[in-house]
Amino acid sequence: RVLELVEPLHEADLADLLEQLDADERAMLVRVLGRDLDPYALTELEEGVRDEVLEAMAPEDLAAAVKELDADDVVYLVEDLDEDEKARVLQALDPVERVAVEKSLTYPEDTAGRLARHEIVTAPPFWTVGQMIDAMREAEELPDDFHDVVLIDPKVEPVGLVPLSRIMAAPRATRLEDIKREEMHVLRADTSVEDVAYAFQKYRMLTAPVVDADGRLVGVIEFEDAAELIDDEAEEDLKLLAGVGDEELSDSVFETAKARFPWLFVNLLTAILASIVIAQFDRVIEQIVALAVLMPIVASMGGNAGTQTLTVAVRALATRDLTPANAWRIIRREALVGLANGLAFAVIVSGVGLIWYGDPTLGLVLAAAMVINLVAAALAGILIPIGLDKLGADPALASGTFVTTVTDVVGFFAFLGLAGALML
Amino acid sequence: RVLELVEPLHEADLADLLEQLDADERAMLVRVLGRDLDPYALTELEEGVRDEVLEAMAPEDLAAAVKELDADDVVYLVEDLDEDEKARVLQALDPVERVAVEKSLTYPEDTAGRLARHEIVTAPPFWTVGQMIDAMREAEELPDDFHDVVLIDPKVEPVGLVPLSRIMAAPRATRLEDIKREEMHVLRADTSVEDVAYAFQKYRMLTAPVVDADGRLVGVIEFEDAAELIDDEAEEDLKLLAGVGDEELSDSVFETAKARFPWLFVNLLTAILASIVIAQFDRVIEQIVALAVLMPIVASMGGNAGTQTLTVAVRALATRDLTPANAWRIIRREALVGLANGLAFAVIVSGVGLIWYGDPTLGLVLAAAMVINLVAAALAGILIPIGLDKLGADPALASGTFVTTVTDVVGFFAFLGLAGALML
Ligand SMILES: [Mg+2]
Ligand SMILES: [Mg+2]
Ligand SMILES: [Mg+2]
Ligand SMILES: [Mg+2]
Ligand SMILES: [Mg+2]
Ligand SMILES: [Mg+2]
Ligand SMILES: [Mg+2]
Ligand SMILES: [Mg+2]
Ligand SMILES: [Mg+2]
Ligand SMILES: [Mg+2]
Ligand SMILES: [Mg+2]
Ligand SMILES: [Mg+2]
Ligand SMILES: [Mg+2]
Repeated sequence: RVLELVEPLHEADLADLLEQLDADERAMLVRVLGRDLDPYALTELEEGVRDEVLEAMAPEDLAAAVKELDADDVVYLVEDLDEDEKARVLQALDPVERVAVEKSLTYPEDTAGRLARHEIVTAPPFWTVGQMIDAMREAEELPDDFHDVVLIDPKVEPVGLVPLSRIMAAPRATRLEDIKREEMHVLRADTSVEDVAYAFQKYRMLTAPVVDADGRLVGVIEFEDAAELIDDEAEEDLKLLAGVGDEELSDSVFETAKARFPWLFVNLLTAILASIVIAQFDRVIEQIVALAVLMPIVASMGGNAGTQTLTVAVRALATRDLTPANAWRIIRREALVGLANGLAFAVIVSGVGLIWYGDPTLGLVLAAAMVINLVAAALAGILIPIGLDKLGADPALASGTFVTTVTDVVGFFAFLGLAGALML
Repeated sequence: RVLELVEPLHEADLADLLEQLDADERAMLVRVLGRDLDPYALTELEEGVRDEVLEAMAPEDLAAAVKELDADDVVYLVEDLDEDEKARVLQALDPVERVAVEKSLTYPEDTAGRLARHEIVTAPPFWTVGQMIDAMREAEELPDDFHDVVLIDPKVEPVGLVPLSRIMAAPRATRLEDIKREEMHVLRADTSVEDVAYAFQKYRMLTAPVVDADGRLVGVIEFEDAAELIDDEAEEDLKLLAGVGDEELSDSVFETAKARFPWLFVNLLTAILASIVIAQFDRVIEQIVALAVLMPIVASMGGNAGTQTLTVAVRALATRDLTPANAWRIIRREALVGLANGLAFAVIVSGVGLIWYGDPTLGLVLAAAMVINLVAAALAGILIPIGLDKLGADPALASGTFVTTVTDVVGFFAFLGLAGALML
């Protein structure tokens, strides 16, 4: 009965189903399905669930599943297994595929070499379209889904890419090198997945040849594989900004709480810093309690404006639209935006101060602190990610916490400092 | 001289260069380049820059550029032009392409119909591989880059996709329907780009047929076009979370400030709400100024914890990993994570209260408020995006502001309320 329900599911939907179950239900479903578990669904699972599912599978079912998959998918399945489990799974593969998997595993995780497929359709550039078609049609096995023929020279260096659609359209006598793509972006095997994602994103490639340190072709990355990376990078930035690591929805309460603790702790330290600033003005607050009431407004507005700038800056750094060439223009723009909105809200909050407490000086202090803090927010929002980037760190790395620290400290200091100077 | 520098650039790099220049430099470069401006670079520009560049181009250069592009690229170029400018540009096209562009423009922006390419390679399912190869090789013009042949029935409804690589690998006598892809996901022309992006992302498709309301094939969307959407969606969520609209790096100070004002204004209103809460306790603060010093710690920790949960929830909703089926489990998990970290930080901050002010009751109040606020943060962080989603709004829509409002209000109320009850 379960099988009837699960059988018709697309592999991605089955993977989603497995991810949504809790750990016990998941293990049970895996055991009930046995050999009927679609092996391709395994490749779609997030890492934590993947490892649980592999654990729950009977060894002979796992071996059967692995036999059905391509080498690059097997690599994803086994990369985090213990050495002996890994060896047992690889034993199930035919020798050619095992060598391919083992070769991929020699490249570090998160590099182009690990990600590449090693089944490549290659040809010398002087071949004609006719020769190529005949060769492909006579080949014993072609990769199931490929988009380009890789042209290689005698040193096995890639010299061009020819899309299948052009091979289809060209006369038989045409030489392949005459219909190759106008551009080819070759990736070194040690290129980070982040740079792989960026290159695919920017150049809208279908296929990128991957070469070793000597420039020799070792594999190709296809669009389908890169698309996942692009999405992962965007997710990473989103989460880093908020101080969330690479947790997954299937993680337990304890794992999740532990993973989020460190940035909350950093935030506690920075919040205490803000409190120390306030403590310097405790005598002022004692005399004018309105200050305690209004000070969060200044801090909160600064935090929000800083986060706006920060988000734009992090995204622009990720898409490499923010570069040393235009950094100064963008910094100036953000500072002016901060000033403009600072002045706009200064007018509004001075009204709030006046109406609420009927005190024009309080309104003035609130207005001045607002201008100061929104300019500080803009500068922190852009300079902190640029600074992290310069230091080689990820510009999104919990910069939210740093930016709001600046806006809290500057906001409290400006507001209480001005109040102390003008109102006592 | 400029031409020498610009000529060798990839179209995407030229687009980046144009985006990075300021408006005057940009217009100058466009005029200097004239007919030598790579038309493909136009299609890579962000919307604001695109419209400026079109403005700066001589009409005859623009006409020449448009002639070189595919219909779907022309659509992107002209979609925001005035009617008469649009008509002038379209006049430059040959009649077949003009009809294709005009047809695309009849579909609303941000739908599959607008996005689709109308040059499609189709075949009846009973054709053999041999017939298909011959037909493609004899066709006068094939699209430059396509990946699948779309099988259609007599009613022009799509019934299957056959990848070129399988056509290459199969014997000539094989019927196309016997080597079609195992899955095909058909999109209706009125599907939103958001759903298009999601379908491509999830099913890792290369090609999706687009059909009209009667199920008839009107075009195809290829992976390359969808990849951009996937990235745009991630960017949109990142920006919405921070209350930033679809501003671009090339926008002016005034445009940017104006675009960011509304959410800052909403934030001001919510910050005033928090101030009103504090104002209820002004007599307590007057007597114990330490409360004013320490209260931002509780609010700030809540804001951070809430943002962590919110970010995870928004992402999980976007990838549809958070569904009604597992919502309760995730809500419970988040609440428990909030409780766990609330208890951990309660211990820490009670120490801070004790050491700093030497007052155990103050430490206790701080600790209790921390637990309450981190649980409230978790609930707000998950329930607000789920609620927005249920209402049909984008779950990322400035939810950051709403979540920090909850954590500010709850944090101040719990901390000052408990202090008033226990310490006076
Ligand atoms: Mg999923
Ligand atoms: Mg295979
Ligand atoms: Mg694969
Ligand atoms: Mg891993
Ligand atoms: Mg993923
Ligand atoms: Mg990153
Ligand atoms: Mg760009
Ligand atoms: Mg064309
Ligand atoms: Mg195109
Ligand atoms: Mg538009
Ligand atoms: Mg874009
Ligand atoms: Mg969205
Ligand atoms: Mg805050």
